[in-house]
Amino acid sequence: MAGNTLGKVFQITTFGESHGVSIGGVIDGTPAGLELDPKGIQSDLDRRRPGISDITTSRKEDDKVVILSGVLPAEGGLFVSTGTPIGFQLANKDAKSADYSHLENTYRPSHADYTYDAKYGIRDIRGGGRSSARETACRVVGGAIARQLLKSTDSVEISAYVERVQDISVPFPPAFFSREIVDSTIIRCPSSEVASKMIQRIETVRDEGDTVGGSIVVVAKNVPAGWGEPVFDKLHADLAKALMSIPAVKALEIGAGFSGTLMKGSEHNDEFVSGKNDGTVIETSSNRSGGIQGGISNGEEIVIRIGFKPVATIKKTQNTVNRDGEEIKMSGKGRHDPCVLPRAIPIVEAMVALVLADHSLRQRTSRL
Amino acid sequence: MAGNTLGKVFQITTFGESHGVSIGGVIDGTPAGLELDPKGIQSDLDRRRPGISDITTSRKEDDKVVILSGVLPAEGGLFVSTGTPIGFQLANKDAKSADYSHLENTYRPSHADYTYDAKYGIRDIRGGGRSSARETACRVVGGAIARQLLKSTDSVEISAYVERVQDISVPFPPAFFSREIVDSTIIRCPSSEVASKMIQRIETVRDEGDTVGGSIVVVAKNVPAGWGEPVFDKLHADLAKALMSIPAVKALEIGAGFSGTLMKGSEHNDEFVSGKNDGTVIETSSNRSGGIQGGISNGEEIVIRIGFKPVATIKKTQNTVNRDGEEIKMSGKGRHDPCVLPRAIPIVEAMVALVLADHSLRQRTSRL
Amino acid sequence: MAGNTLGKVFQITTFGESHGVSIGGVIDGTPAGLELDPKGIQSDLDRRRPGISDITTSRKEDDKVVILSGVLPAEGGLFVSTGTPIGFQLANKDAKSADYSHLENTYRPSHADYTYDAKYGIRDIRGGGRSSARETACRVVGGAIARQLLKSTDSVEISAYVERVQDISVPFPPAFFSREIVDSTIIRCPSSEVASKMIQRIETVRDEGDTVGGSIVVVAKNVPAGWGEPVFDKLHADLAKALMSIPAVKALEIGAGFSGTLMKGSEHNDEFVSGKNDGTVIETSSNRSGGIQGGISNGEEIVIRIGFKPVATIKKTQNTVNRDGEEIKMSGKGRHDPCVLPRAIPIVEAMVALVLADHSLRQRTSRL
Amino acid sequence: MAGNTLGKVFQITTFGESHGVSIGGVIDGTPAGLELDPKGIQSDLDRRRPGISDITTSRKEDDKVVILSGVLPAEGGLFVSTGTPIGFQLANKDAKSADYSHLENTYRPSHADYTYDAKYGIRDIRGGGRSSARETACRVVGGAIARQLLKSTDSVEISAYVERVQDISVPFPPAFFSREIVDSTIIRCPSSEVASKMIQRIETVRDEGDTVGGSIVVVAKNVPAGWGEPVFDKLHADLAKALMSIPAVKALEIGAGFSGTLMKGSEHNDEFVSGKNDGTVIETSSNRSGGIQGGISNGEEIVIRIGFKPVATIKKTQNTVNRDGEEIKMSGKGRHDPCVLPRAIPIVEAMVALVLADHSLRQRTSRL
Repeated sequence: MAGNTLGKVFQITTFGESHGVSIGGVIDGTPAGLELDPKGIQSDLDRRRPGISDITTSRKEDDKVVILSGVLPAEGGLFVSTGTPIGFQLANKDAKSADYSHLENTYRPSHADYTYDAKYGIRDIRGGGRSSARETACRVVGGAIARQLLKSTDSVEISAYVERVQDISVPFPPAFFSREIVDSTIIRCPSSEVASKMIQRIETVRDEGDTVGGSIVVVAKNVPAGWGEPVFDKLHADLAKALMSIPAVKALEIGAGFSGTLMKGSEHNDEFVSGKNDGTVIETSSNRSGGIQGGISNGEEIVIRIGFKPVATIKKTQNTVNRDGEEIKMSGKGRHDPCVLPRAIPIVEAMVALVLADHSLRQRTSRL
Repeated sequence: MAGNTLGKVFQITTFGESHGVSIGGVIDGTPAGLELDPKGIQSDLDRRRPGISDITTSRKEDDKVVILSGVLPAEGGLFVSTGTPIGFQLANKDAKSADYSHLENTYRPSHADYTYDAKYGIRDIRGGGRSSARETACRVVGGAIARQLLKSTDSVEISAYVERVQDISVPFPPAFFSREIVDSTIIRCPSSEVASKMIQRIETVRDEGDTVGGSIVVVAKNVPAGWGEPVFDKLHADLAKALMSIPAVKALEIGAGFSGTLMKGSEHNDEFVSGKNDGTVIETSSNRSGGIQGGISNGEEIVIRIGFKPVATIKKTQNTVNRDGEEIKMSGKGRHDPCVLPRAIPIVEAMVALVLADHSLRQRTSRL
Repeated sequence: MAGNTLGKVFQITTFGESHGVSIGGVIDGTPAGLELDPKGIQSDLDRRRPGISDITTSRKEDDKVVILSGVLPAEGGLFVSTGTPIGFQLANKDAKSADYSHLENTYRPSHADYTYDAKYGIRDIRGGGRSSARETACRVVGGAIARQLLKSTDSVEISAYVERVQDISVPFPPAFFSREIVDSTIIRCPSSEVASKMIQRIETVRDEGDTVGGSIVVVAKNVPAGWGEPVFDKLHADLAKALMSIPAVKALEIGAGFSGTLMKGSEHNDEFVSGKNDGTVIETSSNRSGGIQGGISNGEEIVIRIGFKPVATIKKTQNTVNRDGEEIKMSGKGRHDPCVLPRAIPIVEAMVALVLADHSLRQRTSRL
Repeated sequence: MAGNTLGKVFQITTFGESHGVSIGGVIDGTPAGLELDPKGIQSDLDRRRPGISDITTSRKEDDKVVILSGVLPAEGGLFVSTGTPIGFQLANKDAKSADYSHLENTYRPSHADYTYDAKYGIRDIRGGGRSSARETACRVVGGAIARQLLKSTDSVEISAYVERVQDISVPFPPAFFSREIVDSTIIRCPSSEVASKMIQRIETVRDEGDTVGGSIVVVAKNVPAGWGEPVFDKLHADLAKALMSIPAVKALEIGAGFSGTLMKGSEHNDEFVSGKNDGTVIETSSNRSGGIQGGISNGEEIVIRIGFKPVATIKKTQNTVNRDGEEIKMSGKGRHDPCVLPRAIPIVEAMVALVLADHSLRQRTSRL
C-alpha cells in the first residue's frame, strides 16, 4: 500500500535510495519456462545509465544488474525462469554523500524535499533519497524482463523516441522506429536533422545553468486485440498511471489526444475495415483511438505521447525557504541532466512493457 | 483483478450493465462515525442524470440511489457510517432493449463492441452493456461519499467545469469555481458568454447528426501537504488512472502540463515562500506543479485538465464491418449525448474525490 | 482493505447487515462463457436457510437471490456469464429490530459486541449487524458460482458433512459423501445411526437453554495437481484463512493434522505410486498430506477438518458488563441455533469452492 | 498474485532459493520514524540459524542480514526508518549443489518436488529450490522489524515455545514465557524436565534415520482491543493463513480450539468483567476465545497452537516414483533436521508479528 509495487499478476516491487547500499527489486509472476537473455536486460539498463553522452549528467554508475533468484542457467548464457520471484540488485557506486550536505535544511523548488518532509517528518537528503531518478533503473530491469516475455508470447515490440525538446519538434506524426534508428543520435530523436537542433538547444540552455523538457512518443506494436479490463483497469488508464509515475512527467495523451478533442465524432471515429488474413482480422483505417477502445486493445498500434517538464535542479540562483520557513536563496550543485528526455526513453519503454505484460497475463483468465 | 475495484483503503467496487436489473456497488473502507447526507449523494447523482437539458440525451432514468447497508439512521435525515461496507443500488428503469437489436452483428466505430468481443467472445449488446456510460452513475455515488469524507476531515473541496468545447474556450487559466457558478449554465462553463457559444456549437453539430468533445478542468483545494506515495502510487499517477478510466477521456495534464514542457527549469520551478500562520505554513508563489511534487501533495491547489474525445455514437452514416468481417454501412440510433462534457463534470469530480479519499486514509500510516 | 473481499482473480465482495435493507455482493472475475444454473445457486442457498428443521433457528428468511448483472439469459432457464461483475442481492425480510433493543448497552459474552465497539466506537445492534451469521448467505451465492465454474472446467466436486457433535462422532475416517447422503439427515451426518444420537443431544442441550459445537469434514475431489502458490499463498493457507473466517470456527487441520504430529516421518510420508492411465498419472498410496504438498495440490483428495465452538447465544443467565463497564446479568433472547453445524455445511463448501476457483484461475498464468 | 507477498499495509515480499546467489526481500509500509535495532533483527535470525545445536541440521549458514535501503543511521548503532521500502539480503554461503544431483529425476515423498513440477513444468532441484525452508529466514527478518514496530507503538510482545514433541508434552496450559526461559533448553521448551525427554526422543529417532513433529504454542500479549477486520480478514483468519504458510504446519487452533468444541456454550463463553483502571478497561474472566472475538482482538492474550508434521526428509529407504512415473526406491541424503520445532519458534513468532503489525496499521483507518 506504500506504493512500491506495480501490477496485479506480473508485479514489480522496488526498493532503494540513491545513496544507500544498493537499489533493487523483485519481479513476481513471470511464467515458468521463459528464456531470459541477461545481456538484453543489461543492454536496456545501459541505455538509461548516466554519463553516456555530453548532454547527460556526468555522475558515474556502471549499473550492473545482478539477478539473485528465480532463474536457472540455460544454454548459451541464457537463463530460464522457474516461476518463482526474480530478485535483482544494482550496487550504488558513485554515492558522494558529501555533495548533499548543503540541502539538509533546504527545500529545493519543485523537488520532493518539502513534500517528503510533510509526509514522513524525516527525509534522506543524500541524492534525493527515494525520490531520486536512480530508482528508475529498477523499472528498466523489470521492463526488460516484461519485454522479453511479451516478445516471446506475442511478438510485441515497444519503442519510444524524443519527439520534441522545448519547441523543437519532428515534423512527422507518431510512428514506430527501431531502436537502431532511435539510438543513432544521443538525443534519441529519429530525425538526425532535428536531433542536431535539439542537442544544440540543450547545450545552450545547460551553459546558462538551466534545463529543458519536451515530449516523448511511445508505440507498441503487435499487441493482440482483447487486452485490458473494462471500467477502472482500462488498458490506457493503467498505462497512464505507470507513465505518470515516471519523475518529471506532467502530461499524457493516447492516440489523437488533445488534438482529437477539436474534431467532430465523424472526423475522430476509426472506421473498421476487413483486414489481414482474407478479412478475418479486423482493422481500422485510421488510429485516432491509439490502439485502445473501451479500455481494451483493438490490435492497432498503441500510441502515447508523454510530456516531461524541465529538470527541477538548475544552477541558477532561486528563492526558496528552509525547514524553519525562512526565505533563502540557493543554487543547484552536483551533476545533473540538463534534459532528461534521452535517458527517459528506456524508462518509458519499460513502463509500457510492465503494464502490457501484466495485462497479457490477466487476459488469460477472461474466458472459460 | 477484473478491474471493477478502485482504491486500496477507500475502495469502490461497481457492477451492472445499462440494461440489466440494476447497477450498483460497494464502498468499502469508509471510517466509522462519518455523518452522511443522503440528499448530498442524490444531488451529485442528479447532476449526472440524463435528460436534464436540451443538449443531453433524452434517455430517462430517475437514478434514485438506495443505500443498502453500512449506515445507521442519524438525526435530521442523516446517516452515520458504521465502518462496514456501504452497498448501494440504482434500478434500471428506461431499458428499451429493442433499440439495440440492430447492433447484434455490428461493430460500431470507436465503440467497445469489437474489443469486448475480442476479449470475452461474448457481449451484451443492450445499451453497450458494461461499457455503457451508465456505469459511471456508481462512480458518482462513491465519489459523493468520498467527497463528504474529505469535507469532514480536511475541508477539501473539489470542483470541475467545462473549459473548452471543440475550439471554443474560456479566456482565463484554470481556477476554482463554486458549484453554483458552474451550474449556472447548462454546459457548466463558468463564463456565461462563452457558455452561450458552446451551447450554440453543440446544437449546430447535433443537428448535423454529429458530436463534439473538449476539455474539463478540475481543481481540488485544501488538500493538505503529504498525500500520495512515492514511486508507483504517486498522487497524480493515481489521479491520472482514475480520470483516464472515464469513458471518452484521451488526454490529461497536471499543472502546467504540456505547456510547461516548453519552459526552462528556471521558468517552470515553483519557488517556496513563507506563507500562512506567520510563515509556519510554506507555500509556493506559482503553481506550475499543479499541487503535487514528487508524487505528493504540497498544499497548493491540485489542478488537472482532461481531454474528452467527441462521442462515438453519431447519426451520420459510417463504414464499418460486422462480426463476420464483412464491410457494411451503419448509422447511430437511439438517444445519445451530442457532447458528453456537462454530464461528465460530476464524474470527474467523483473520480478525484475517490482518489483523494483513498490517499487521505493511506496517509494515516506513513508516520510512527 | 476493510476485509470484505476475498480472492485475487476470482473475487467476492460482500455487504450487508442482518437488519438493513438487503445483503448482497459482487463476484468479479468469472470467466466469460460459463453456463450458470440459477436453480443450483438457489439450491445451495436453501441448504443454509434458517427455519428448515427442528434443530435450527425459527427465524424466517426466504433467502431468494436476485442476480443483478454480469449474465445473459441462455436456453433452458440458464444464464451465461459475460465476464463482467455479477452483482446479487438478498432482501432482509424477517428483520424484527425490536427484538434487540435490550442489547443496546450490553456486551454479550463471546460475541463481537465489545470488539466492534472497541474498533469502530459505534455498532449496529440489530441482529448483530455485520457480525451476524446472515452475512454468510452471500458467501454461499459466491461459492455456488465458484462451484459451477470448477465443475465445468475440471469436474471438481466439494462435499462437507458433520463428523462430530460435541463428543458424538462418526466411527470412520474422513471421506467424500454425496450431497444426497449428507442431506439424508437434518444434522447432515452421513451415518443415520450417529445422526440420531447427535440430534437427540442437540435437542437435550437446546432444552437446557444451551448450545453445542463439533466438527465438520470437507473433501474436494478431482482437483488437478498444480494449484496453489509457493510461500505465502499456499493452497492450504488460503483455505485455512477462508474457513477460519466462518463465524464460530476455532480450529482446523489438513490431512492427518494434529494426529499426524504424533507420527514419525517414515509413518507420515505419502509414498508416490505409478497410477492411472498406465502409470502416467502419479498418485500417492496414502493421503496424510490431505492432497496438498508444498502448498500445491498433488491431485489427491483435499481433506480438511474444521472445529466449531458452541454457539455463543444461550438462554441461560450469564454475567457480563455493559458499555459503562458495570457488571450485569443477561440471558439470550430471540431465535438462535442450538447447533450451527448443519447450516454451516453449505458455507464450508462455499469457502472451499471460492478458494479453489481463485487458484484454478491463478494457475493459468504459472507457465509460459 | 504469485503469492510471494504477505500483508496489505505492512507488507513483506520475499525472493530466493536455497542455492541461488542470495535470498532476501522487501518490507514495505514501515511508518517513518521507527527506531530499528539491527542487532535485534540479527538476534531473531540467529535463533533460526541452522547448525546451532546437536538436534538441528549441521548445514552452515551464517545468515548475516544486510539492510539495503529504507533506513538512516541513528545514534547508538540504531537505524531510523524513513517510510520507504526496506530491502534486505542474506547471502547463500553453504550451497553445495552437488549434494542434490541424485534428485534430478526423483519425486521425494511428501516434498514439493512433484507438485512444483506439476505446476511449473520445471524445478530447481538444488536444495529444494524455492520450497526450501531457507526461505523462512526472510520471514524472520520481516518479523523482527514488525516486532520492533509493535513493541514501540503498543508494547506488544510475542513468544512461542515447543509444547509437545510427538507424544511428549508439557503438563500446563498455554501461557506466555519470556525468551530467556524458552531459550534455556535447545528444544525451546520452558520445562527443562520435559525438554530433556523431548531431546532424548529426537536423538533416538534421528539415529533411526527418522524424524518427528509436534506442536508449538504462541502467545501475543498487550494487543489492544480492536485489531482485525470483520468478515474475511478476521484477525485469526489472517493469523491462520500466515502460520499455515510455514513449511510443515498442518493444523492450528485458536484459544480452546478443538477441545472447546466439546463444551457447551455456557461452558465455553468468556464472561466479561470490569477490569483494570477502576473498571474502565473491560476484561474476560476466562480466555477460551484466545483473545479474538468476531475476528477482532478483545485485549486478552492471543493464544494459538500449531501442529507440525514430522520432517519429510528421512534417511530410511522409501518407495517413490521418478519423473517418468517409474517406481523406485530412495533414501534421504544431506543434512536435515530430525525435528523442525526448535528452529520453527522464531518463524512462528515472526509470522504472528507480521500479521499483527499489518492489522495495527489497518486499524488506524477504522474511525473518523
